[in-house]
Amino acid sequence: MFFVNRRGEQILGQPSYRSLADLPQPPELVAIVVRASGFEAALDESLRAGARAIVAITAGIGEKDAAGLTLQKAMVDRVRAAGAVLVGPNCLGIADTSTELNLTWDRFHPGPVGLISQSGNLGLELAQLGHDAGLGFSRFISVGNQADVDAAECLQAMIDHAPTRAIAVYVEDFADGRAFASIAESAAAAGKPVVLLTIGETPASARVAHSHTGALVSDSIAVDAACRASGMYRVQTPQQMVDLLQVLLAPHQPAGHRVAIAGDGGGHVALAADRLIARGLLVDGFSDRLSASLAGILPPTASTGNPVDIAGAGEEDVFNFERVVRLMAQSGEADALLLTGYFGGYSEQSEDYRRLELEVAAALTRSAHDAGRFLMVHSMYPKSPTSQQLRHDGVPVFADIDAAARSLGRLADRTANPPRGVPSLPSPSRSAAPVPTDYFGTRQLLAEAGIPFAEARTAESENAAIAAAAAIGYPVVLKALGAAHKSDAGGVRLAIADERQLTDAFREMQARLHPTSFSVETEAPLARGLELLIGVKRDRRFGPVALVGLGGISAELFRDLAVALAPVTVEHGVALISSLRGAQLLLGHRGRPRFDVEAAAHALSALSELAAARPDIAEVEVNPLLVLEPGVLALDARLVRQSTDP
Amino acid sequence: MFFVNRRGEQILGQPSYRSLADLPQPPELVAIVVRASGFEAALDESLRAGARAIVAITAGIGEKDAAGLTLQKAMVDRVRAAGAVLVGPNCLGIADTSTELNLTWDRFHPGPVGLISQSGNLGLELAQLGHDAGLGFSRFISVGNQADVDAAECLQAMIDHAPTRAIAVYVEDFADGRAFASIAESAAAAGKPVVLLTIGETPASARVAHSHTGALVSDSIAVDAACRASGMYRVQTPQQMVDLLQVLLAPHQPAGHRVAIAGDGGGHVALAADRLIARGLLVDGFSDRLSASLAGILPPTASTGNPVDIAGAGEEDVFNFERVVRLMAQSGEADALLLTGYFGGYSEQSEDYRRLELEVAAALTRSAHDAGRFLMVHSMYPKSPTSQQLRHDGVPVFADIDAAARSLGRLADRTANPPRGVPSLPSPSRSAAPVPTDYFGTRQLLAEAGIPFAEARTAESENAAIAAAAAIGYPVVLKALGAAHKSDAGGVRLAIADERQLTDAFREMQARLHPTSFSVETEAPLARGLELLIGVKRDRRFGPVALVGLGGISAELFRDLAVALAPVTVEHGVALISSLRGAQLLLGHRGRPRFDVEAAAHALSALSELAAARPDIAEVEVNPLLVLEPGVLALDARLVRQSTDP
Repeated sequence: MFFVNRRGEQILGQPSYRSLADLPQPPELVAIVVRASGFEAALDESLRAGARAIVAITAGIGEKDAAGLTLQKAMVDRVRAAGAVLVGPNCLGIADTSTELNLTWDRFHPGPVGLISQSGNLGLELAQLGHDAGLGFSRFISVGNQADVDAAECLQAMIDHAPTRAIAVYVEDFADGRAFASIAESAAAAGKPVVLLTIGETPASARVAHSHTGALVSDSIAVDAACRASGMYRVQTPQQMVDLLQVLLAPHQPAGHRVAIAGDGGGHVALAADRLIARGLLVDGFSDRLSASLAGILPPTASTGNPVDIAGAGEEDVFNFERVVRLMAQSGEADALLLTGYFGGYSEQSEDYRRLELEVAAALTRSAHDAGRFLMVHSMYPKSPTSQQLRHDGVPVFADIDAAARSLGRLADRTANPPRGVPSLPSPSRSAAPVPTDYFGTRQLLAEAGIPFAEARTAESENAAIAAAAAIGYPVVLKALGAAHKSDAGGVRLAIADERQLTDAFREMQARLHPTSFSVETEAPLARGLELLIGVKRDRRFGPVALVGLGGISAELFRDLAVALAPVTVEHGVALISSLRGAQLLLGHRGRPRFDVEAAAHALSALSELAAARPDIAEVEVNPLLVLEPGVLALDARLVRQSTDP
Repeated sequence: MFFVNRRGEQILGQPSYRSLADLPQPPELVAIVVRASGFEAALDESLRAGARAIVAITAGIGEKDAAGLTLQKAMVDRVRAAGAVLVGPNCLGIADTSTELNLTWDRFHPGPVGLISQSGNLGLELAQLGHDAGLGFSRFISVGNQADVDAAECLQAMIDHAPTRAIAVYVEDFADGRAFASIAESAAAAGKPVVLLTIGETPASARVAHSHTGALVSDSIAVDAACRASGMYRVQTPQQMVDLLQVLLAPHQPAGHRVAIAGDGGGHVALAADRLIARGLLVDGFSDRLSASLAGILPPTASTGNPVDIAGAGEEDVFNFERVVRLMAQSGEADALLLTGYFGGYSEQSEDYRRLELEVAAALTRSAHDAGRFLMVHSMYPKSPTSQQLRHDGVPVFADIDAAARSLGRLADRTANPPRGVPSLPSPSRSAAPVPTDYFGTRQLLAEAGIPFAEARTAESENAAIAAAAAIGYPVVLKALGAAHKSDAGGVRLAIADERQLTDAFREMQARLHPTSFSVETEAPLARGLELLIGVKRDRRFGPVALVGLGGISAELFRDLAVALAPVTVEHGVALISSLRGAQLLLGHRGRPRFDVEAAAHALSALSELAAARPDIAEVEVNPLLVLEPGVLALDARLVRQSTDP
């Protein structure tokens, strides 16, 4: 390692060279830590000196304006022309604990987590929270502007890096989102789960991120769809990331949602049961046999159902914790075990207790391990010697019971609902004509894709409307075309029974809305079906994303939507529809009719295939899609063409 | 202070007496720390020695069986007869930092929080988490079995205790829940907010709590209703309690939902915006004027809308944090200010930086204070000297941005939606006859209370049904009576158009369901209204609780319910209905009809008054209540009589 400093001063007690050209041998890697104004010269000097890798620990380069971006691009071109790679600029450095390389301000303890961060400070926060939770790091890469090396490449490199067992990513701009998601899928397949923290859920957040690094932030539903497809775990805060990494790195993962809870004190175990159930886990009562076994070793005041309150038995004999965990682990009645409350605190009482509790902790870790059961601990003493030993032995320890419950809930949900893989996009359709955006053109495009529509005829005049209605047969629906939200603006009139009602409606809407034209349509049997909305929205990074929800105001009020990267298969469509909270309305719950979910999934799949094949579709939506028994009927459609601006 | 020990051994280096009778003067307070078997003798000895207060730090007394409870009651009777009071038994002791009394295992630092806990270990956990967050305690009372002194009395005592500024309560059994809630209301009125942690959200939790202390755990909706009425803040975990206490103790409370965010780094401020908005807060863009003022002091790479990314300006000059906070505080454009990310960490870099950052922290605390603005900090360095100073000066500091967002969201929601007070229950109605539970009896009771029903006639036979339908006029509805869930079991037939359809339906239902009788009813104009459910459910501790939600499956699927302690006024009923997520369906949103919310509130109020006056009503429900424009129509009703068993 050589130091280079313009004034040739000593650095950290070491001599320095005045220029890279003075080095006794070409540098493999140069870390450039200079002000923005000196960066270009330092970069060119590095390349001239033969550097193959450059880490640009800088600020204010390539940001905010087009000139800056152009200059950055020119510099990256020179790096690539020289066969070198560049991390940054505007990053906080890199570290690799397996080779003891550390070009950051912080110290990283060795461990299994590979950390990639587009924000230097968030990277540091994650590292600190990880260390607090006993997690060490294999590598840290602050990717900065991702001008050359991007987060996806870093992710790829982690897959082949043996010391890395799980990967933590903070990223604002996914660049090629599908490629990113595919690499995450490969990582998961290699047994290295990826946990993702990102921003842009809200306009306020997207605004500042764009201003910050020029990031093209993705729609939150696109990120969710990419996570579902690839198996990435999305988290909302640095603390959640560290919580989840802890459980993902445990030696056994839960095979289902059933949890057995034990603790010394009714309050703690009751609280734990409430939190676990709130996070979707099951805390079902034990079999009589297991309860009897527990009663056999515990005092009469103990609760031996589930949750188990050992009621002072820990004070009597700390080994009771191990006995209880062993019985629960061996019973096969739980997929996961939770010890909550005081345990962990004996080791802070006295030297004798410390020795004893460490022994008990080792024994109960072994019992869970031998039975192949996931074990975690919530402790009032999360930093005690016992808690530290538990973490070291692969048992996640939480200070907050809700963090424990949330993290375990994520694992169990994943087992129940594994990822389906990132779908590839078909080659763009060679259709010469751009997609239509008018109502009848959109209907035709979607109908050709296999989505059945209610019969409709266009009508420019009152007489044409009367003729259309006569041909279709009353009752009919009259729609004024051209307005963005037809039904909100009063542009749809249902249940028109005869010619007189039709002419009344036509004249009223004509006068009020001045539409470009009208559509006269068959009245659909609304009362015999249920309305869904299906759509596809193109994200700048992840491409087309399919979505389905209950139609009308329910989707809006209750945000009951399911999303997936397009295209989706029919079978995947059925799964998406069935995952809606309102799915029971469709599935024949409590004597209600069972609507044709398969036909709805068929329509969703067809729409998603169409949008995936036509990059000039920015958004397409059928709302409502009336689901009947059997069949479906599209009652309205809307298409937005992709703007050709970037 | 005297020690008493049977063997007369030294305790903590002090001599001890062999018996309370040997003391040189009567004890004011006796802490009894003995095994269960020796408790009764020690208690009687204490009373004989003249003790006025007894703290029973024991385990296993009065639990699990009737004999234990009887013995406990007898002992409490003797305590009361002697004019003494008893805390416990089975408690962990009490502490009062203002008088340096400490009869617990733990040390409590002096501070503003009064802590009452029915669980000893949860009390200790709260104390530890509080200390970690820089919160001190005025008093700690572990109430144990509440055999004599109960949590409500402890709460009352905190109101008059000057050093106590906020009250933290963990309780499993509320005893007289209305009285408890009323005392909490008085505490809030005295400027001492009460934060409540309880259990029993789920059957697993209620089961163990009952087994643990014989607690009669309340329905979670009853606890929610009591909190809404009294202004208690309900939390789900000890950590949430400490988080909320921090913000409640801040010198200024936010007057609304608008938050201004600043930090050094786009990632942190974007993440904060996402979390705050997810918790119901507003992060709206600043005025051009404020943005320009910020731009005037920050580098060109900064984002000066909201959130504010100072983009390295902190590194340049730590005082920039103060300048930004001051401009935001003085602007009047935010109700609360959040500083997020690195700030707090300079004080860990060097002595110089430490001095500087402490000065900046003091200055920005003053700026927010002078402007009367709520300020909080999320810091990557929550334990640094700066973070400690901030907390000491009344600025909440969080390690987790979501905890900060959640806590602030609670404050802002409270401002927008202040508590309405705990309603008193009317004197029980003197009606001699017990409430009816059959369908027609229930209808009549509710109709007399002012709830309009669809016309209906009872019919035991086919001919009676035909006559009834003729009298009412077709179309009619036929209901088979007797089954618990009539529509689920196919016991309701709608839209019967003529006599033939009626006889078909009658015979089919007769054969399939063997009902006790039938009801023939007017067909209500379902398509012209919206269905609500209204009901009242009696909780063992909090009494009658009114609830309202969207009718039918929506309430069930989306859990869209609002609750309140009964009785509720009409105006309160309107507020409850308007608080539903689905309220837009009623309120004339986007050109939809506006249904008669006032009439629905009238029905809810009437039902709640009835149930409040009739303690023999365990549950009463109208589902559906069809809300029309104008008016409402009750279409079904169900009443469950209160069992006379305890």
